[in-house]
Amino acid sequence: MKLDHIKHASGPLMTDQYQLTMAQLYYRMGLHETNAQFDHFYRSNPDYGVHKAGYCINAGLETVLDWLDRVVFGEEELEYLRSQRSSVGGQLFADDFLGWLGNDFSAKAINLYALPEGRVVHPNVPIHVVEGPLAVGQIIETGLLNIANYQTLIATKAARIKHSCRGQLLMEFGLRRAQSLGAISGARAALIGGADFSSNVGASQIFGFPPKGTHAHSMVQVFMGLGEGELAAFQAYAEIYPDDCLLLVDTIDTLQSGVPNAIRVFEDLRRKGHRPVGIRLDSGDLAHLSILAAKMLNNAGFPDVTIVLSNDLDELVIWQIITQIQEEAERYGVDPDKLIKRLAYGVGTHLITSTGNSALDGVYKLVAICQDNQWIPTLKISENPDKTLNPGNKRVWRVYDNRGKATADLITLQGEDVTAYSPLELRHPTMATKHRFLGQDEIDHVEKLLEPVIFNGEVVYERPTIEHMREVRDADIEYLDPGVRRIMNPHIYHVSLSRKLWDLKQSLIKKTKNQNAK
Amino acid sequence: MKLDHIKHASGPLMTDQYQLTMAQLYYRMGLHETNAQFDHFYRSNPDYGVHKAGYCINAGLETVLDWLDRVVFGEEELEYLRSQRSSVGGQLFADDFLGWLGNDFSAKAINLYALPEGRVVHPNVPIHVVEGPLAVGQIIETGLLNIANYQTLIATKAARIKHSCRGQLLMEFGLRRAQSLGAISGARAALIGGADFSSNVGASQIFGFPPKGTHAHSMVQVFMGLGEGELAAFQAYAEIYPDDCLLLVDTIDTLQSGVPNAIRVFEDLRRKGHRPVGIRLDSGDLAHLSILAAKMLNNAGFPDVTIVLSNDLDELVIWQIITQIQEEAERYGVDPDKLIKRLAYGVGTHLITSTGNSALDGVYKLVAICQDNQWIPTLKISENPDKTLNPGNKRVWRVYDNRGKATADLITLQGEDVTAYSPLELRHPTMATKHRFLGQDEIDHVEKLLEPVIFNGEVVYERPTIEHMREVRDADIEYLDPGVRRIMNPHIYHVSLSRKLWDLKQSLIKKTKNQNAK
Repeated sequence: MKLDHIKHASGPLMTDQYQLTMAQLYYRMGLHETNAQFDHFYRSNPDYGVHKAGYCINAGLETVLDWLDRVVFGEEELEYLRSQRSSVGGQLFADDFLGWLGNDFSAKAINLYALPEGRVVHPNVPIHVVEGPLAVGQIIETGLLNIANYQTLIATKAARIKHSCRGQLLMEFGLRRAQSLGAISGARAALIGGADFSSNVGASQIFGFPPKGTHAHSMVQVFMGLGEGELAAFQAYAEIYPDDCLLLVDTIDTLQSGVPNAIRVFEDLRRKGHRPVGIRLDSGDLAHLSILAAKMLNNAGFPDVTIVLSNDLDELVIWQIITQIQEEAERYGVDPDKLIKRLAYGVGTHLITSTGNSALDGVYKLVAICQDNQWIPTLKISENPDKTLNPGNKRVWRVYDNRGKATADLITLQGEDVTAYSPLELRHPTMATKHRFLGQDEIDHVEKLLEPVIFNGEVVYERPTIEHMREVRDADIEYLDPGVRRIMNPHIYHVSLSRKLWDLKQSLIKKTKNQNAK
Repeated sequence: MKLDHIKHASGPLMTDQYQLTMAQLYYRMGLHETNAQFDHFYRSNPDYGVHKAGYCINAGLETVLDWLDRVVFGEEELEYLRSQRSSVGGQLFADDFLGWLGNDFSAKAINLYALPEGRVVHPNVPIHVVEGPLAVGQIIETGLLNIANYQTLIATKAARIKHSCRGQLLMEFGLRRAQSLGAISGARAALIGGADFSSNVGASQIFGFPPKGTHAHSMVQVFMGLGEGELAAFQAYAEIYPDDCLLLVDTIDTLQSGVPNAIRVFEDLRRKGHRPVGIRLDSGDLAHLSILAAKMLNNAGFPDVTIVLSNDLDELVIWQIITQIQEEAERYGVDPDKLIKRLAYGVGTHLITSTGNSALDGVYKLVAICQDNQWIPTLKISENPDKTLNPGNKRVWRVYDNRGKATADLITLQGEDVTAYSPLELRHPTMATKHRFLGQDEIDHVEKLLEPVIFNGEVVYERPTIEHMREVRDADIEYLDPGVRRIMNPHIYHVSLSRKLWDLKQSLIKKTKNQNAK
């Protein structure tokens, strides 16, 4: 796979074949430029098996925007499509359609409304709304899903791990276990969702964060192989990186060899006026070892150097480590709170692949189509009522109650003024008997969630920094009830329909079933 | 993330920061060009939770080769590294080291030995062996792992799913659920491991397979929204793709609407001299619906059109579907064997993300270092004996017994002649009491597994086609005992050490512990 290949498969051909065959059908029927609306949303929060998420952190929008810039059918792409054959040997894509793709197709012909990155998001709430020519909306489906599904999945996992870390430093270490180049997007999403830094050098540069790392076991092995030992390896490292000296202490034996050798090197550094950074533990009982290592470091007069933990960590393991430290540290004369505040975490596999739930179930559905300047809501029925679409052009609101907490996301039809309702009715999306009313005195304020990103062919969105996205994330998480935030068995956040949307949905279901019965 | 960014993060900076800091340390110590050997292997077969793999299918080598071509530190990369700062503000990477990276570093300075793609591979058996300058071997670690771990993971999952399909057509549908650009490698690995085609247009072009697809629910929704119905949508599709007419029949109601409408369209096609391709079922009880749909198609005189199944499939679900068809079909007057032979499968999420085990635990370890033209084996001890390295320059053999089956992979030291041993001793890698002997009369033949890929700066490997890799795969799987092949609770394949390697390992463990006790 050469760079040309990557370029090739990450542009307009980053799509499923059926998007192109459908686009040609729309072209042939004269429907390709008919206005249509597609909603992108996901159906359920990640479920990792023994634990699950109560919310997601949205990420991917800027990557989508950058990709849309590359969705241009050039001669190379058109030639490839022209070469495709039907099963009896004819040209699969006709020249007139390819001419339209090459000359008239523009990914920026859509209006795009989106939830900004870093924001808390919930199931069934539209995150990206695409309004524009039917064939364009169809062709960009796969790429948009590819980008947004994965980044939201990882930002969410990062937020959970950061939550377990209790605000301590979190480093993304997953490049070697990612899906190849997916690591770049993964690092980005991790940085938005909860990681402070990444070890991935190229990704760190792109996103403007210094890459982080220590050293590997192999460095110690080299010195041992050449007849020297761990101490010589540490001394060499300290010599070259006197102000960034973070030593991996478990190559031979953490407590018998690694930590004592690190302390000798730290003492040398201190004598020379440098501040040692810390040690890294990468195997064994990380809670127990961190207590004993902390005790040794404390006794040697290094109560502040960082202890970095790594090795198959995730939000549950970190939670367990911290719990064990709280139960066990005092027995060894170590203050558990101080120890917890000197820890940092390097998380690889479980962050970059979102172990236990390796894909977000984001979908992109046609919800309305325009005929004679009238928007017609469209439906897709499913045997599973939770999968029946919320039809039509909609708006999305977040309702904050008088405790200052977000109490529900409300999906309405376009044109509804939610501030005019008294009380405000919040209906369960599928169960007719489940609804509640909020008096205006119970509502602090209602926030419109989607922002215009592309409008009339122009990008109208100012790209925030990742630091800003993190502020947005922290604020949004703070608005959640603690029960929704908790990492196991979280309380379910309400995503509700307005009465008008509920009524439209029911009438469309009835109409479709009647059509079908005929 | 613009294309420049992708280019940037997929070249020499596709590495972890610590590889570069270690490389600088080696440079400073004069060790950067010291010959070293690194083994890449994985530790355990994928465990998906309720089921696990008994072997893996190797993939990734050509992508590694293509990547090595791009591991060149140009001015842009060097400038970025030059801009990195230590924690007190000094230049982290010194100019002389950067000069070496820019002028003298060559990723092709290594000798690379590898197992060809498509071959069956087992835990702890070296897949890639890198022999060359220490700093080069270190810098390429992360990228090699990134590429090889993921592709082998996915080729393995594809082989399992193909096994469950009983040879029926398998299509890779995962682009929208992959880790962004990881989808390209994922499609490649799937095509090597078991998928026949992919829906991913760009990846299909790169790897030389026609992309496959049908149409989406949205196409039917469009027609319904515009006041027409499913039948009109199907008719339009058949009009444009008369020889590739595969219709998605579950947008409204599979048996009441979708299949009857498809049959009407197929009848029209037949009248016009075309051969309808089939239907796709994407929701509901796929086993039950495929039986009833087959019955309807049979009755209408279409006993051969394909029934494509999709929707959250994996190897277990497919196995269950087939089992249910075997139990249930006859009751409806459908021949189960004929039905199973007309099925095809589209698998998305669970293939491209290897659900249940989303990363292979491949590692890359220093096993020997050269001093005064002498190779010195190196060790890394672990509290977990399974993680203690097999040290030294090794060779890898596959032993075929007189049943014609592969009975074990044997790891020896370089220079050992396995054909000279009578009997051949096969030792368990960690348990002293577990070993067995094979008389030469019990052995059919012994095969050397690793092939030279890069030697003396030249690529000496002829790239096979993916079709060839598939032949290799099928032959290798055929050599496995059925117990090793089965998808649940597989029998454990033996990976053994020679007596000499076992003795070396034990003596090194003893020596390291003694060094440490001093």
